[in-house]
Amino acid sequence: MYPANFSPQIPDGEDRTRQVCGQCGFIAYENPKIVVGSVIAQDGKVLLCRRAIEPRRGYWTLPAGYLELGETVEEGALREAWEEARAKLELDGILAIYSIARIGQVQIIYRARLAEPGFAAGPESLEVRFFAWGDIPWDEIAFPSARWALKAWSEGSPLIAGNPPQDARGTAGL
Amino acid sequence: MYPANFSPQIPDGEDRTRQVCGQCGFIAYENPKIVVGSVIAQDGKVLLCRRAIEPRRGYWTLPAGYLELGETVEEGALREAWEEARAKLELDGILAIYSIARIGQVQIIYRARLAEPGFAAGPESLEVRFFAWGDIPWDEIAFPSARWALKAWSEGSPLIAGNPPQDARGTAGL
Repeated sequence: MYPANFSPQIPDGEDRTRQVCGQCGFIAYENPKIVVGSVIAQDGKVLLCRRAIEPRRGYWTLPAGYLELGETVEEGALREAWEEARAKLELDGILAIYSIARIGQVQIIYRARLAEPGFAAGPESLEVRFFAWGDIPWDEIAFPSARWALKAWSEGSPLIAGNPPQDARGTAGL
Repeated sequence: MYPANFSPQIPDGEDRTRQVCGQCGFIAYENPKIVVGSVIAQDGKVLLCRRAIEPRRGYWTLPAGYLELGETVEEGALREAWEEARAKLELDGILAIYSIARIGQVQIIYRARLAEPGFAAGPESLEVRFFAWGDIPWDEIAFPSARWALKAWSEGSPLIAGNPPQDARGTAGL
């Protein structure tokens, strides 16, 4: 991930190890990343995308991805739904926030509906479709957090805080 | 912020400008950063810290700071309260989430109480004290987001979504 000229060091005045370039001294600060996504529901069904890219190519997931600089979390969630599912959304508030400390992610997942009819596979998806709850291919879901969010959605809980999924160190939702 | 050997370039296969090292090709991806903090209340008063460091040295703010890798958002909020106010907290759920896209931040602010009596200025604070609402030094608050969070707390709203502060592009809270 880092070129060979980087090595882990503790910079002066700090108490954490950072990757530092031995040539120019550049310190590559790594921070947790924000993932934004949506559970898009229609007539009791939920929209899933089959991934066209690694990791987990061929598996199903929610439209979600990294928040970019200059975006609000809502803008990021809307962009990801467009990129992956060619869907224009209406957001209905935050469903859940998951801290996945092991991989340095905080996921912010919205409840959403289609603001306009129509959806299609974007460049990062092989296929996009709505699934009735009983038809969700649980064994082919790409990531645990997609399963957590789908279950949180189905439970219709106004607040997940204090009752996170067992394999997450989870957080509030509403 | 970057050494002279870095310059803005659009890496192959991407559509956004990134800072790239002209010597080793290292791409410095910049992502939005997560700030975690708390409105700590006791007997109707709120705890503020007077900053000992720049920016805004001498101004008052909430205990808050950047989430570090390996932390959940709750752990980050608890750590910041300890570092800045030597306070051990009980968190009472998320008060607000603010997207401040202009500076690449997402702030997650908790409602909190002291889990144990006692607090004191940590190394980054000059002074720490509880303020009654009418005594809050509004002209000496360090950051707009601290004002927004204090007002959200005072309004006791269960949900800020759709009614963000005018100068933020704000987000859900509960």
